[in-house]
Amino acid sequence: MDANPVLAEAMRGNWVENRHRGAFAILDAEGRIVAAAGDIERAIFPRSAIKSMQALAIFDHHADDRFHHTPEELALACASHHGEDVHVTRVSALLERLGLSEADLECGAHPPTNPAARDALRATGRQPSPLHNNCSGKHSGMLSVALAMGVPTAGYVSRQHAVQRAVRRAVEAVIGEPLTEDRCGTDGCSIPTWAAPIRAFALGFARMATGQGLSAGHATAARTLFDVATAHPHLVAGTGHFDTLVMEAFGGRVMHKGGAEGVQCGAIRDKGWGYALKCDDGNMAASQAMAAALLLEFAGPDAQQRQVLEAFARQTLKNVRSTAVGELHAVLHEFDAKR
Amino acid sequence: MDANPVLAEAMRGNWVENRHRGAFAILDAEGRIVAAAGDIERAIFPRSAIKSMQALAIFDHHADDRFHHTPEELALACASHHGEDVHVTRVSALLERLGLSEADLECGAHPPTNPAARDALRATGRQPSPLHNNCSGKHSGMLSVALAMGVPTAGYVSRQHAVQRAVRRAVEAVIGEPLTEDRCGTDGCSIPTWAAPIRAFALGFARMATGQGLSAGHATAARTLFDVATAHPHLVAGTGHFDTLVMEAFGGRVMHKGGAEGVQCGAIRDKGWGYALKCDDGNMAASQAMAAALLLEFAGPDAQQRQVLEAFARQTLKNVRSTAVGELHAVLHEFDAKR
Repeated sequence: MDANPVLAEAMRGNWVENRHRGAFAILDAEGRIVAAAGDIERAIFPRSAIKSMQALAIFDHHADDRFHHTPEELALACASHHGEDVHVTRVSALLERLGLSEADLECGAHPPTNPAARDALRATGRQPSPLHNNCSGKHSGMLSVALAMGVPTAGYVSRQHAVQRAVRRAVEAVIGEPLTEDRCGTDGCSIPTWAAPIRAFALGFARMATGQGLSAGHATAARTLFDVATAHPHLVAGTGHFDTLVMEAFGGRVMHKGGAEGVQCGAIRDKGWGYALKCDDGNMAASQAMAAALLLEFAGPDAQQRQVLEAFARQTLKNVRSTAVGELHAVLHEFDAKR
Repeated sequence: MDANPVLAEAMRGNWVENRHRGAFAILDAEGRIVAAAGDIERAIFPRSAIKSMQALAIFDHHADDRFHHTPEELALACASHHGEDVHVTRVSALLERLGLSEADLECGAHPPTNPAARDALRATGRQPSPLHNNCSGKHSGMLSVALAMGVPTAGYVSRQHAVQRAVRRAVEAVIGEPLTEDRCGTDGCSIPTWAAPIRAFALGFARMATGQGLSAGHATAARTLFDVATAHPHLVAGTGHFDTLVMEAFGGRVMHKGGAEGVQCGAIRDKGWGYALKCDDGNMAASQAMAAALLLEFAGPDAQQRQVLEAFARQTLKNVRSTAVGELHAVLHEFDAKR
């Protein structure tokens, strides 16, 4: 198998220090490749990048009719939030409305991703709770699905639980590929994660952006989810994060979501294109540089959007004394545009 | 240029999530290749992996005669220490004997690498000082060189300063390659770092292990430095660190030192072999897995040494709830042994 191309590299002084390989695909909703690099048939774990696909289960099982999720709560269902007050408060409110509490979350606890929120929590002497887990919004949404299905919530993270089977079916329908036991793992937040080809995830995002190739219910739900996520970018990640800044800059034109270990997915909605990208070695900063370069090239950014993207496509590296010592940047010329 | 081979991969469940490429060389002191993989002529930044080579300048300029560095202080000159009390206290004592203080260190301040030491410092409300910088032992050694040379200590981290010119000459002599301005950067601790071929660093470690190919002064100094580093492995890194555990297990037979961004160097002293390894993407855990596999294969470990190495050659990956969800492991079959 050929190696994927180098899509980002880190310079120190005048010499390359690190090389990051990867693959990406940009597809339209009919499966036509707009652009691609590397092995796009390689199955990758999408991790948190497909939370918006997983959230379709909320609509499939009419949890939204019963619990009337607010737009903000749906945005949090698509989120890897940073544990800031605004995130924690809203997740907590949804759980209360569901008649549940943080004790029902099975995602585990970790300190807030946002450094200020982490320091503030530490200053109180309290331990992190599952509410601070970046996935607590998604898990609250999954708990609403369990209630709507009339099944016990306990064990909802298990591969065999009705909720995860519902999530699996929704994702399979959107990406047009079976999710199989021979390429399955457990995510950071304890739910299953299923590997599938990069191409299939790009197709899924194109379908969600356009409604083409989806059931009427999924098409409507997908539009709602992309609308709420792009209307509330701060809820989908947090202060200063790439996903938040990109969606703020594009004002609804771009849905974007990263996933652990160097996954970046999204849709250029007005063009009807979906994209998926994986950095082979799992480096997040490098994957953001690659995604920024992809959007610079294919999303037709205006001057302000370009400025946001360029800060990630070329990231200054600093040393202990905060001296600029190098740069992590996307390697644009490797992009194998097929337009 | 061909891609380097995959030398480590991370599994999640039953599927590969990340791939880490790299190159390594094991050489004897006459430059014969014992084993190698990937492009060993590629120039890499050795970073902290060659602190023992840099410490030769202490002997070249007779700073040892004047200041009588203890074995522990010399071990710290070769160290990326973890800011534990034993590290900070000893560095502080050397500086005092030199008539200097932490204010003379130009490495910058960062919190201790050791989590317990970091928490303990935080609990006092004090800020990290340059003494906690993992490089403070090396910098104190460099300050002793400045004093021995009779030059101002201020600016000793600069590429043009007499100390850094002395360090550069020592490294060039050991690796048998010029260090050139066209491949130079600034290290995390603000001193210059010079890129050179992986093969040359492996050769340099073989020469330091044997004395062959070195001046009489360098041969003696190298033996002293490898002796003190392997006699005090806890000073060279810290509690639980790969470098420390490896050297403790091998009891003097193996000198080992990692460097930032996935560099691993060392010597199998009784065989007279030096080695150098770089993970292309800079991932430290992956580079440790690779180095552990290299030592398993080539250092002739006994049962206890094997146990230490295997824990790094196969590292369990856990999620937020501490459930084992995968494994980062070296890919041994890619190793292109030429013995």
